[in-house]
Amino acid sequence: MAEPVTSRFLRACAMQPADVTPIWFMRQAGRYMPEYRAIRARYTLLEICRQPELAAEVTMQPVKSLGVDAAILFADILLPLIPMGIRLHFAEGEGPVIENPVRTEADVVVLRDDVAPMESLAYVMETVRLVRRELAGRIPLIGFAGAPFTLASYIIEGGSSRNYVKTKQMMYHAPDTWHMLMGKLARVVADYLACQVASGAQVAQLFDSWAGALSHDDYTAYVLPYSRAVLCDPRLTSVPTIHFATGASAFLQQMKAAGGTVIGVDWRAPLDWAWRQLGADVAIQGNLDPVALLAPRDEIEKRVRRILQQAVGRPGHIFNLGHGILPETPVDNVRAVVDMVHEYTATTRDLTQNLTFKEAIQL
Amino acid sequence: MAEPVTSRFLRACAMQPADVTPIWFMRQAGRYMPEYRAIRARYTLLEICRQPELAAEVTMQPVKSLGVDAAILFADILLPLIPMGIRLHFAEGEGPVIENPVRTEADVVVLRDDVAPMESLAYVMETVRLVRRELAGRIPLIGFAGAPFTLASYIIEGGSSRNYVKTKQMMYHAPDTWHMLMGKLARVVADYLACQVASGAQVAQLFDSWAGALSHDDYTAYVLPYSRAVLCDPRLTSVPTIHFATGASAFLQQMKAAGGTVIGVDWRAPLDWAWRQLGADVAIQGNLDPVALLAPRDEIEKRVRRILQQAVGRPGHIFNLGHGILPETPVDNVRAVVDMVHEYTATTRDLTQNLTFKEAIQL
Repeated sequence: MAEPVTSRFLRACAMQPADVTPIWFMRQAGRYMPEYRAIRARYTLLEICRQPELAAEVTMQPVKSLGVDAAILFADILLPLIPMGIRLHFAEGEGPVIENPVRTEADVVVLRDDVAPMESLAYVMETVRLVRRELAGRIPLIGFAGAPFTLASYIIEGGSSRNYVKTKQMMYHAPDTWHMLMGKLARVVADYLACQVASGAQVAQLFDSWAGALSHDDYTAYVLPYSRAVLCDPRLTSVPTIHFATGASAFLQQMKAAGGTVIGVDWRAPLDWAWRQLGADVAIQGNLDPVALLAPRDEIEKRVRRILQQAVGRPGHIFNLGHGILPETPVDNVRAVVDMVHEYTATTRDLTQNLTFKEAIQL
Repeated sequence: MAEPVTSRFLRACAMQPADVTPIWFMRQAGRYMPEYRAIRARYTLLEICRQPELAAEVTMQPVKSLGVDAAILFADILLPLIPMGIRLHFAEGEGPVIENPVRTEADVVVLRDDVAPMESLAYVMETVRLVRRELAGRIPLIGFAGAPFTLASYIIEGGSSRNYVKTKQMMYHAPDTWHMLMGKLARVVADYLACQVASGAQVAQLFDSWAGALSHDDYTAYVLPYSRAVLCDPRLTSVPTIHFATGASAFLQQMKAAGGTVIGVDWRAPLDWAWRQLGADVAIQGNLDPVALLAPRDEIEKRVRRILQQAVGRPGHIFNLGHGILPETPVDNVRAVVDMVHEYTATTRDLTQNLTFKEAIQL
């Protein structure tokens, strides 16, 4: 009997064989889609996030348009900072601007860490409920949050950064302040994800997008304990967690040590190399270069097949990009990748469908 | 009998034991130094490069101030593009601007690749001669060039970039154009380095600063052959070559396959992990996070010692940062690191000085 299609994604998270390899895309709802741009023309990013009907509609756009195997909550990564006391806005073409950046111990002391997300971020929880209702069990909904380090880098730098000089300076010059800040962020992020799960999110992804700025040792000392505090939170044990970073090829084992049912990797490493670094006992998500979605179709197909071949015979692969979809990406190419992944793995599935995990990893 | 101090750097390149671990810094001449800023207040970057007396003076500033074990030619990485037909200027605070970016086959066809650097870049060669004269054999002079990929990314994007979308698009959509461009750049870079060596440079470093934007497979297919063409150029076999990239932890073996007597690595990977990836038969340069130079002195010392401990017992380590010195770096900290490296390795040297290479790598 065929597996029910709805469980494909969750089966891969659990390293169980699935009918085909599940696929979704980071930033699958976004500016590359005309239906998203139509909404963004009328509302700011924060307005969309704060109106659950709009946020739910945007969350559903790629589900309807692409045929992906999971939905992901539409929300800005910086939202949980607002109830902590951070004031922010988005400057046109420049990304987020933090109006009261956090630089000193006093700045950290005044940050609230008991933010009661069910109330302070009620609009996010309502979006989760609306999306779950609309999905009606067809595919699972992924909740998400920025990881403590990535959030810390935004509020210390005051926005995006190239070298993370102020962030690292706080680590080096004021480690007590750093640890206090990361402790507060870890509590808020864990609460926020726990509320998403309680509201209906079936998976939780932690985005540590900028962890790749760090050395292995600084990641281990200053970041890992706080990501672990989130990923090991007892309120999240009921769902699979996906732990994602870019530029972390040199410390994948440390990312795994921090936790995650699934480790999300960027495009720099071959998928099989990354999986060897991680060990065979964890699921993996990735890892097409987002820029490859702008390539001609036959080039895209070559790259997609190569990734799938590197995962063949091993349950526990979720296909995704190595980072978010770029605004200039043609929608048709995104849709084509969904079909490629499903069609290719339907034909190669015979290799693995009746194998146990132990047999499969020996292929 | 003690080794002559002048050969410390070249001995490490050859994986021979040295009296202490040699050290220099990428971007050791630059805005963090008051004596450099004094000159920059009166001349533009290109004016300094084009006046050999000024460029030689700037090259010598860190030699006089820091006690480093090698000098590196002061020159902008984009200079060899000028005789190819690229027009460029530097916008205040924004980095280089390419006035005629290269996007089409026709743009590539008109680029000159027979640039005769002895004449077209005579000012660079004169700088090399002046510096060699002033150094009088005390320490060696490193010549350098940007690698074909890094130069290609500047001229295709029109300047610095975040996602290298236009560069990768040329690879994917117009591979023949890409290969023609890279072939031309490789010829120019090889000629340029060969002329520096003929003028007196005793080492040649190839900077592939932005190669870390690529996947392992794209690096292998689109970049490696051209970096190899440079590094294997017969005119460079008389000197050690240093092959440097950042963000390349996932394809260090491919960097090594492209060539280089020494592989320069960034700070993300622990030095010993990187050396295991590379194999024990190549020298290594690195790998302190440049931001660590802004830390308190005891934190800097901890990080410096850790790197040295990871290299202990293995000849062939050249201490450096994982990328260039940042403008906000205190000069005193840079100077202190030179002393730390020399003092610490003078005391640990007993461990290794009488070992053969084979014995040393088994430590």
